[in-house]
Amino acid sequence: MTPTVVRIDRSSPQPRLLDATGPLISIEDEGYTRGDGAFETMLALDLTVRKLDLHLLRLAQSSRLLHLPRYDDADWQAAIELALSAAPAGTPSELGAEHTVKLLLSRGTPAEGPYGLVVVSAVPESTIAQRRDGVRAMLLPRGHDPAEDTAYPWLLAGAKTLSYAVNMAVLRHVRSLGAQDAIFTASDRRILEGATSSVIVARRDGDALTLLTPEPSHGILPGTTQGAIFEGARADGWELGFGPLYPADLLESDGVWLSSSVRLLAPVARLNNQALPVDRGLTDRLLGYLMSR
Amino acid sequence: MTPTVVRIDRSSPQPRLLDATGPLISIEDEGYTRGDGAFETMLALDLTVRKLDLHLLRLAQSSRLLHLPRYDDADWQAAIELALSAAPAGTPSELGAEHTVKLLLSRGTPAEGPYGLVVVSAVPESTIAQRRDGVRAMLLPRGHDPAEDTAYPWLLAGAKTLSYAVNMAVLRHVRSLGAQDAIFTASDRRILEGATSSVIVARRDGDALTLLTPEPSHGILPGTTQGAIFEGARADGWELGFGPLYPADLLESDGVWLSSSVRLLAPVARLNNQALPVDRGLTDRLLGYLMSR
Repeated sequence: MTPTVVRIDRSSPQPRLLDATGPLISIEDEGYTRGDGAFETMLALDLTVRKLDLHLLRLAQSSRLLHLPRYDDADWQAAIELALSAAPAGTPSELGAEHTVKLLLSRGTPAEGPYGLVVVSAVPESTIAQRRDGVRAMLLPRGHDPAEDTAYPWLLAGAKTLSYAVNMAVLRHVRSLGAQDAIFTASDRRILEGATSSVIVARRDGDALTLLTPEPSHGILPGTTQGAIFEGARADGWELGFGPLYPADLLESDGVWLSSSVRLLAPVARLNNQALPVDRGLTDRLLGYLMSR
Repeated sequence: MTPTVVRIDRSSPQPRLLDATGPLISIEDEGYTRGDGAFETMLALDLTVRKLDLHLLRLAQSSRLLHLPRYDDADWQAAIELALSAAPAGTPSELGAEHTVKLLLSRGTPAEGPYGLVVVSAVPESTIAQRRDGVRAMLLPRGHDPAEDTAYPWLLAGAKTLSYAVNMAVLRHVRSLGAQDAIFTASDRRILEGATSSVIVARRDGDALTLLTPEPSHGILPGTTQGAIFEGARADGWELGFGPLYPADLLESDGVWLSSSVRLLAPVARLNNQALPVDRGLTDRLLGYLMSR
C-alpha cells in the first residue's frame, strides 16, 4: 500500500499532498546521499497522534543538533491533519484504527535546502501481533559505550537521524539467528537499549512494584513511550529505578518489555535461550498508563 | 548542474540512463528512510576512473557487511561507461577533465529491493583548489575509539554506508569555526582519520624519507588513496610507518595531507592554530605515485 505523503517547506508553509506512487526524492537529496536528516515515528489511534508533544520536542532537539531549521509545531500539526485526512483506513485493533505517522526532516538538495515530510501508512498486523505474542530478543554487544560520545555535539548522540544503517544491521543479524529483536549491552555488560526501542523491567516484591530502565542521558535515546509509562506508573505508586541494569536483572525480573511508539509494549518472551515471564496483567496495566496520558 | 545517473538492477543487468532533472527515489526507499546502503566516490580523469579495482573491492566489502547483493564488476563497469559517455564535460585541470563518479547501492523499497546507481558530476572547482591551496584543519575528539566496534560485524565498522550524518555534522562544526576539515582523535589523543579522508604524514631525516599514517584495521576506513600512495612510495624507497600517531607527530612533521579519492591530496596548511609546512615538491611527488598507478 502506497503511503500518504505531505510536504512542508519553510518558504511555503502550506502543507502539500504529494503523489507517492512515483518517485518523490531527488538523487541529490542529502537525506538520501548522506543520511542527513531527522525523523520521528508516531502512532495515530482513530486519527489522533499519541504523544505528539513529546515527539515534536525530540524532533526539535534532533534539528538543533543537526543544524536543521525547526518548523513551528502548528505547521507540523496542519501537515499531519492533512495527511491523516487523506490516508486510507488504518489497521483495526482493540485500540482503534491504527496508523503509523512518520515525521521526516531532510537537509534536501544543495539547491533547494531542507524540507519536512509527514508519511502516513497503516500499522502492519505483525507489529500489532507482537504486543500480544511478545518477542524473542537477544543481547548484543554495542561495541563502544555510547556515553563516550555525549560530550561532543558533532557526534549527534541524542539525535534521531536518518543514519540508521547500524540499527537495521542489528535487526538483520538477530533475525538471521531466529530472534526478532536486540538489546544492546555495553562492554561491562550493562543494558543499554533495544535496536529501535527502550528497555523496561518490572520487579515485584510482595506488594511493592518497581519499574526499571537503564540510566538515561548516557548516550541512550530518551524513549518517549518509556517516559510516558514511567509518568503514569509513578502516579500509580510504583517505585521507579534508573539503572544500571545487567543481564541478570532482566533474567530474574517479573517482566521485560521493549517500548516504542508504534509497537507500544512488546513483552520479551525469550531472552537469548531463556524464557521470561510474560504477565498479561502487568502489560495491560503499563499500557493503561500510556493510553490514559 | 544535474548529475548523470545510470541505474542497474540484478533482475535486468542492462544499465539504464535515468532523467535526474526530476525526483528518482521512492519515499519508501530504505537508502533514504534508514541510510541503509553503501557508496563509493571516485575520480575520473579524461573519462577513465582512477583506482576502480580498489573501490569495487571496498564496495563489495560494504555489501557483505550490509547483507546487500554484490554486483559483478563488469555490470558496474558497463554502467560507469554509459554514465560517463552521457555526462557533460568534466572540470578542466592540469590532470585532465575531472568527473566525480559515485557508486551507490541502496536497499531500495521493501517491494522492489536493492539496486545500484552510478552518479556522475563535474568535480567542483573548490575541490581542485584545495589540492593547491591546502586546508585549515582542526583536531576533533571522536568520542569512542572506533576500534571498540570492529569485533562486531553488525556495527558495520569498515563499511562505507549512506549513514553519513556524523561525518557531515563534523564538517559543519569545523566550518562554523573557520576551518575546512577535521581530523578525528581518540580519547588518548591518538590520530584516527579525517572526516572524509585519511591522514598522511611525511618526515625527513637527512636523506631518509618516512611516510606515516594511523594504524589501519582499528576501526578506520581503509583509504584507497592512502593505500595507492604508500604502494608507490615504498617502491621509491620511502620508509613506511603505521601509527600510532599523536598531534605532536603532525605538528613536528615535514608535511601533513588529507588524502581522498576526488580531492586526492590536500596539504594541511594549518592545524588548529599552528601553521604547518606546505612543501609543493613533496605533494607533487606523492601525487606522482598515485598517478603512475
